[in-house]
Amino acid sequence: MAKASFDPQEFRSALSTFTTGVTIITTRAENGDPVGITANSFNSVSLNPPMVLWSLDKSAMSLSAFTNNKHWNVHILSTEQEALSGRFASRGEDKFKGLELDQGINNIPLMRNCTARFNCRTAFMYEGGDHIIFVGEVLNFDKTDLPPLAFQSGQYALAAKKPREGVQLSATPPPECSYTEDLLGYLAGRAHFQLVASLRNLLQSQKLDEQQFFILSVLSIQDNLTLDEINGFVDYTGNSVSEAEMEKLQEYDLVVRVNKDNDSRYLLTGNGRDASVKHIALAKAVEEQVIDQLGAGEVEALKFLLKRLIKVTDPGLPDLWSSGEEKNVKTSA
Amino acid sequence: MAKASFDPQEFRSALSTFTTGVTIITTRAENGDPVGITANSFNSVSLNPPMVLWSLDKSAMSLSAFTNNKHWNVHILSTEQEALSGRFASRGEDKFKGLELDQGINNIPLMRNCTARFNCRTAFMYEGGDHIIFVGEVLNFDKTDLPPLAFQSGQYALAAKKPREGVQLSATPPPECSYTEDLLGYLAGRAHFQLVASLRNLLQSQKLDEQQFFILSVLSIQDNLTLDEINGFVDYTGNSVSEAEMEKLQEYDLVVRVNKDNDSRYLLTGNGRDASVKHIALAKAVEEQVIDQLGAGEVEALKFLLKRLIKVTDPGLPDLWSSGEEKNVKTSA
Repeated sequence: MAKASFDPQEFRSALSTFTTGVTIITTRAENGDPVGITANSFNSVSLNPPMVLWSLDKSAMSLSAFTNNKHWNVHILSTEQEALSGRFASRGEDKFKGLELDQGINNIPLMRNCTARFNCRTAFMYEGGDHIIFVGEVLNFDKTDLPPLAFQSGQYALAAKKPREGVQLSATPPPECSYTEDLLGYLAGRAHFQLVASLRNLLQSQKLDEQQFFILSVLSIQDNLTLDEINGFVDYTGNSVSEAEMEKLQEYDLVVRVNKDNDSRYLLTGNGRDASVKHIALAKAVEEQVIDQLGAGEVEALKFLLKRLIKVTDPGLPDLWSSGEEKNVKTSA
Repeated sequence: MAKASFDPQEFRSALSTFTTGVTIITTRAENGDPVGITANSFNSVSLNPPMVLWSLDKSAMSLSAFTNNKHWNVHILSTEQEALSGRFASRGEDKFKGLELDQGINNIPLMRNCTARFNCRTAFMYEGGDHIIFVGEVLNFDKTDLPPLAFQSGQYALAAKKPREGVQLSATPPPECSYTEDLLGYLAGRAHFQLVASLRNLLQSQKLDEQQFFILSVLSIQDNLTLDEINGFVDYTGNSVSEAEMEKLQEYDLVVRVNKDNDSRYLLTGNGRDASVKHIALAKAVEEQVIDQLGAGEVEALKFLLKRLIKVTDPGLPDLWSSGEEKNVKTSA
């Protein structure tokens, strides 16, 4: 193991592998000014009496406020409050600017939209090397359903909770077989197809196949495209769109073709937009059901990880949204 | 907020929203027996001198060991060590049975395959309500690259770290458009198609399309299927397999049809198995690249969340793996 006289950098990095939540702890200075700092050194201590602790750097500007004022509030931040965490971690003036506050005990600032909040009164202040350990008795607390923000190895993080029963897709462990249910490609494919399957009844009632659904989706994001441009967005699915397919969509009165300066561009008709809006509404309804069953924090983490996966496997697709903006500018010019 | 005289259950639940890692802390009793407990009340305190803390229930059987022996080791558990966490959280005898240990300072048990480990000597023991707060000076430590296990709201969790730069797929924020890059269905689809796209060159070199790739994958997991059985596994993709397609695979000498008691079953030929093995090898290589770029913990969390998504959106697919086992039993009988 590392030498007794070890590198603070390495020590910090080893400590930071311990995952924590993120809190903001508030009090008031002697002049009444609100004071708040971001801390992840929070932890629970005692159930009876109810006590929590956290530690503060002896060189912190807020030290005197916390040693003088026995009352302070701990806010367990939600995933929406990452920016707030950054604000209170910095030395900026007026960190509370624009924040709506609730009324805490002794008028200690109490912030909103947190996962949980604790009103505390200092029970002990203990020596802790270059920090002071504050142990507080919890006088009051409350809790919301907002998923909590996490912190690990110097980065914010989203936690994906593991249900006690675990998750296994196949009833029995896979037999000796190099293709297992644990293969990322299999999981991504099955997730995709099952989500599309949840749209299938709607698509059938609209007499649309998945390819047509895909085309309408592209045009709903970015209208006024040539066939080549449409295929630029569809190619990566392995299918390409033919004139004939576009003609079918015109027959259904979902798409209209506009010829100008010898290239033809496709636009959604009112019907086409209505059809697409129905797809999106259903997709969002399915997503809501998934959130109900997995939890908002889990779905947030899943989307986040899918975006990271897409980023690192992106073959260099054209940007469906931003280039759309450029075109809107062009055409409106 | 909650009344000052509040429900311990609610209090515990509010506290548990603060995410933590999971540690096992070890020492030796006066008789030399190894002692260890699971604790998530760990936290860092001081950088200089290097100090950490954790708190122990005054009613814990291990209290005397930790108050008598000044030396103890903190193990930050990796995601692989969930079972170990459970073992040391229970009151079972001989928790160390079968564990390979390294040599810690003063012969304190030092476990393997952790994310980080700290050799500590008690600097202070502090009063903390129904707990004792142990503050230890860190004498030694080490660290691996194993992703750490997390704990939130009473459940184990996997943390998905958020890179400082964030993740956005489209260069500019999406215009006012109800179809956004944040739609779960879009993200799952794009992730799937990009992963398949990474196989496309291989498939083309094998003169295979994605449908044929899918059929070979099914047969590589579960051989000796009728066309109906194959379609039972393929239906949810929206495509169905025809006799003609199976004949093509026979022409390519990838699949062979066996007729017995008037039903025909399909099996992979040696070539078919080779082709499928190449697909799986490439899929695993792509997954390794993703792990290199996202991190092992992130990919573990992603797979876990995809499995949960698949579970809750499963239209009731036949179990590709377990039913395969039954058939193997049948056919080998």
